[in-house]
Amino acid sequence: MSYPEFGAGLWNFATYVDRYATDGYGPPRGTLEQIDLAAEVGDIGWVDLNFPFSDGVSVDDVKAKLAEHDIQAIGITPDIYLREHAKGAFTNPDPAKRASALAIMNEAADVVRELGAKYVKIWPGQDGFDYPFQVDYHELNRLAVEGMRDLASGHPDLKFVIEYKPREPRTHMFWGSAAKTILGIQQMGVDNVGVLLDFGHAMFGGESPAESAQMLIDAGLLWGMDVNDNYRGWDDDMMVGSLHLVEVFEFFHVLRRNGWEGVWNLDQFPFREDAVENAALSIRFLKAIHRALDALDDDGLAEAQSRQDALAAQRIVQDALLSSMAGER
Amino acid sequence: MSYPEFGAGLWNFATYVDRYATDGYGPPRGTLEQIDLAAEVGDIGWVDLNFPFSDGVSVDDVKAKLAEHDIQAIGITPDIYLREHAKGAFTNPDPAKRASALAIMNEAADVVRELGAKYVKIWPGQDGFDYPFQVDYHELNRLAVEGMRDLASGHPDLKFVIEYKPREPRTHMFWGSAAKTILGIQQMGVDNVGVLLDFGHAMFGGESPAESAQMLIDAGLLWGMDVNDNYRGWDDDMMVGSLHLVEVFEFFHVLRRNGWEGVWNLDQFPFREDAVENAALSIRFLKAIHRALDALDDDGLAEAQSRQDALAAQRIVQDALLSSMAGER
Amino acid sequence: MSYPEFGAGLWNFATYVDRYATDGYGPPRGTLEQIDLAAEVGDIGWVDLNFPFSDGVSVDDVKAKLAEHDIQAIGITPDIYLREHAKGAFTNPDPAKRASALAIMNEAADVVRELGAKYVKIWPGQDGFDYPFQVDYHELNRLAVEGMRDLASGHPDLKFVIEYKPREPRTHMFWGSAAKTILGIQQMGVDNVGVLLDFGHAMFGGESPAESAQMLIDAGLLWGMDVNDNYRGWDDDMMVGSLHLVEVFEFFHVLRRNGWEGVWNLDQFPFREDAVENAALSIRFLKAIHRALDALDDDGLAEAQSRQDALAAQRIVQDALLSSMAGER
Amino acid sequence: MSYPEFGAGLWNFATYVDRYATDGYGPPRGTLEQIDLAAEVGDIGWVDLNFPFSDGVSVDDVKAKLAEHDIQAIGITPDIYLREHAKGAFTNPDPAKRASALAIMNEAADVVRELGAKYVKIWPGQDGFDYPFQVDYHELNRLAVEGMRDLASGHPDLKFVIEYKPREPRTHMFWGSAAKTILGIQQMGVDNVGVLLDFGHAMFGGESPAESAQMLIDAGLLWGMDVNDNYRGWDDDMMVGSLHLVEVFEFFHVLRRNGWEGVWNLDQFPFREDAVENAALSIRFLKAIHRALDALDDDGLAEAQSRQDALAAQRIVQDALLSSMAGER
Repeated sequence: MSYPEFGAGLWNFATYVDRYATDGYGPPRGTLEQIDLAAEVGDIGWVDLNFPFSDGVSVDDVKAKLAEHDIQAIGITPDIYLREHAKGAFTNPDPAKRASALAIMNEAADVVRELGAKYVKIWPGQDGFDYPFQVDYHELNRLAVEGMRDLASGHPDLKFVIEYKPREPRTHMFWGSAAKTILGIQQMGVDNVGVLLDFGHAMFGGESPAESAQMLIDAGLLWGMDVNDNYRGWDDDMMVGSLHLVEVFEFFHVLRRNGWEGVWNLDQFPFREDAVENAALSIRFLKAIHRALDALDDDGLAEAQSRQDALAAQRIVQDALLSSMAGER
Repeated sequence: MSYPEFGAGLWNFATYVDRYATDGYGPPRGTLEQIDLAAEVGDIGWVDLNFPFSDGVSVDDVKAKLAEHDIQAIGITPDIYLREHAKGAFTNPDPAKRASALAIMNEAADVVRELGAKYVKIWPGQDGFDYPFQVDYHELNRLAVEGMRDLASGHPDLKFVIEYKPREPRTHMFWGSAAKTILGIQQMGVDNVGVLLDFGHAMFGGESPAESAQMLIDAGLLWGMDVNDNYRGWDDDMMVGSLHLVEVFEFFHVLRRNGWEGVWNLDQFPFREDAVENAALSIRFLKAIHRALDALDDDGLAEAQSRQDALAAQRIVQDALLSSMAGER
Repeated sequence: MSYPEFGAGLWNFATYVDRYATDGYGPPRGTLEQIDLAAEVGDIGWVDLNFPFSDGVSVDDVKAKLAEHDIQAIGITPDIYLREHAKGAFTNPDPAKRASALAIMNEAADVVRELGAKYVKIWPGQDGFDYPFQVDYHELNRLAVEGMRDLASGHPDLKFVIEYKPREPRTHMFWGSAAKTILGIQQMGVDNVGVLLDFGHAMFGGESPAESAQMLIDAGLLWGMDVNDNYRGWDDDMMVGSLHLVEVFEFFHVLRRNGWEGVWNLDQFPFREDAVENAALSIRFLKAIHRALDALDDDGLAEAQSRQDALAAQRIVQDALLSSMAGER
Repeated sequence: MSYPEFGAGLWNFATYVDRYATDGYGPPRGTLEQIDLAAEVGDIGWVDLNFPFSDGVSVDDVKAKLAEHDIQAIGITPDIYLREHAKGAFTNPDPAKRASALAIMNEAADVVRELGAKYVKIWPGQDGFDYPFQVDYHELNRLAVEGMRDLASGHPDLKFVIEYKPREPRTHMFWGSAAKTILGIQQMGVDNVGVLLDFGHAMFGGESPAESAQMLIDAGLLWGMDVNDNYRGWDDDMMVGSLHLVEVFEFFHVLRRNGWEGVWNLDQFPFREDAVENAALSIRFLKAIHRALDALDDDGLAEAQSRQDALAAQRIVQDALLSSMAGER
């Protein structure tokens, strides 16, 4: 069986803090240690790296460590959501903060070049608002769109992807849905900005991840993706396949039907779990999904969908999905 | 393979209206016709019947029709949520409306006796409130508890089950969660009132259905159950297994671990689907769950749970669940 | 004090059924009787009418009745979500059903002309899907967009507004958010299709209604609006101002700041309340909002927003809002 | 005008981290500095303090600082949700971790005695589970109830309050609702454990905070409360009154009607706001609520509630609430 390529945000192998466990869910881990852990999983060929790297780690260090494990950088994610940018990166009301965010992103762009990564991933988690009446929405949109345009225009040789999410850490994140992100990219008028669809973010936002994937593909903008799972009410970043098997299966089905080729990437926060085992079990599940895609009666499904026959489709889906681990344990 | 007994609310075989499709999603079907459809499914041995029956249908008619198909009545659900009781049955502010609701329930109790059903199922969907400041909550609780006590005390030979649900058609239904229902039953001080846990209602209320089942079992009050599925934000009454396979599997696992014996009952509203096919596909899925329970590594799971090891548990669960349809199609 | 013009969907004065109270929350009311009730409120100058009208009522009857009360038609809402179109109007898999939906909408367009209404309101509540894997999303989008384009192109002299909503009666409605609706209208390439923003639908979808209003205004597409309230998890269509006073205040503030002139329209379902009193109390609240807008320290608020200072904004907002009924009772 | 006493969790004056802004939303503040800030607000007579205090701060230091500002300790909240107890305090699968949590709580009990506080506040935020199949629910309940019983039995001279919350940081917190907490306390069979109702937690859990308050009062268990606000889908800990004015008004109305006397306490996380201004504005709003309670037509409201007349109640409520800031700015 030939499987797709698998990847992971390097933060899958970090430890975490939250507003309660302020001393962290484990001792801090540096960038290089995280890469070692990613390599331990055994199936991970790509990583998305936060930038700046941990203290004292240079791009050359990272390059060497990646080479050691034969892992490639898929993307670089600049940290534009720390204290300095707690009120926003692109949409910060303070021009100096916007400038410092841009400086970080420009550096991240250089790292993308040096590592030969596919994209700069932009997740401006602090861009948005918390309270009604807090912002002028017209101005907020202007700042978000113009800032992103300026960034992308400055690096015409690179690709940028925006990862949307409805909320957290703001109660309302500016890039909050697939459709709103497409609209913003249209307003930019550039051709090197696309979208990274995070399965869990789409679920959290009440979207059908499969439908959003199709919409993005039709717009020519689905340039990356992450998978994980949650209870639909928060970005829990749980192990993919732990809750919503049918919907993640459908998501990958839509990718395959459209001939989307790309890395199947993990974005998970194993707060209390072993990071390597968490990733390994995730990939074990994704392989089952891949087998289920192979086993799926595509013609039967297409016929059912032509009649929008939910039951006929479910029968076909269950046949494939609920046999996908047989003989594999 | 020996399977559990399966049942269905007879309304699984009705047609429906809602506030938009006021002319209904199909031509009306009478009680007897609905029983015929239930029989068509082939695996349904029990039905829960709304009372009053459709126009002109007597208890004897129903008894004969059930006998014809070798189907038994598991429960009778009195219609105490129609126009007459739009502002409540037990908690209606008008004593005359409370009395008319009680009269219907007393009649339903007689039907339970005549059909030899297991319980009178009480779902007072209009009991509760819609707006803040609308009710005096102390008084609302008094009416709900005293009314139910009076009803149950009047029929010491019968069992009553309350089916809780967070909301719909009221924005807040009085019997809204497993824990609150247990508290209310304690206040009644009677021994013939228990709970019917609807899987979808528990999901809708943000409960873990499996945890609620355990809580009810520990309280000696889990006397009935229904399954279905939804998107966690509404009581969609979709086909069981269409969305939340892991959680429905866990729910049945908890039942088995506690030696709970009873009918696996469907409560679904196939608005736009074929009712017989919907039920048949549901039972096909439930049989897969039953096989998965047999295949589950109980000892391994117990060991994982003793360490609260989510990943170890997931691995065991996926092995069983994702092989449950193999060779069955 | 000069107030804005107020209007209401005529269904504010209907009675309702739902899937439980199948005999309805009250005796049916005809179109003309509903207009009489709207007139009783005293402040309603505009109504949005469902079409077809109730049995035996002609356009001339309606025209006469509206004239009698000096009420104008703001829009006509064709009933394309009844049994015939339970699986969709524009996106129905059956071409014959799509054609019959189009026929109703064409008739509704004629009624708009005859009554001199502002728009045909399109709310294709049955367009979408319920289950994962049920539809081909690319095809669904094609049907929705092409169908709407065909309709609008056939009536270049009229305006059409799409009223989006995340779900109900389908678990996923196609026109589900402000941004997705804008995208779809762009794809149509016509200039006579806009959007009607329903405050409660935006809340239900996790949007900031004020932000969505700004986005639609910036796109030149905010052609109508409805207000009401809900608990954010369902389209409860409760009395405006009963729950989310700050957010409805902000919504109207954004309209005023942008110079949006139009009717303040009610879309509410008083299932268990007196319809006239429900509308009267709603308008009483909207007048308080209008006074609060006059009292609002616009400059102070703009200054606070330039710093995205939530607290400064809240103080200004509370000063105006929490004084808006003083001396009015 | 005589106002109630106001208090605040001392963490209202801390700075915060979350999983993204790992360097914190501001420089750390010690316990004593936080007390100074609380005193700056001007209306805060009570604080709830986390324990252990910040590095190097003794109970005597705290006692002196509180005395300096004439502030009293209302409660002590032991930190049983840090790294050491990331998998639970009472329900940790590891007996050694349960013991270390108990040790912290015993120390906190001593601090309550030394400071003369009203209660030890127990918020076991890490007790619960994240994934289906992760725990044995019967065992989880046993650990939670027995642990709390042991703690409370060891300090019969003190009061303990449990603060329930549906989730965060676990996806499912054990003490998740008012009703479930009452059930657990009944199982303990002790008389010195009650409940602290956090308004936002109740909203987040889909409860009516006012109804939950009444239920707890009727059970004799409402021993403390906190207020704040959120979007109903997460524990946002926003400024009270920023979103849900009617429901917070109703909550205080139920307290007054039942003669509940106690401190009106703030539990807010002003991540990006000035802590002192945040608290000051909150208390300004709470004073408006207090005035609105005085102005409320209690008899009219009681009469409306006897008929469960939502509209009559709303009219009375709006008259009081929307005049509560008039002449006060």
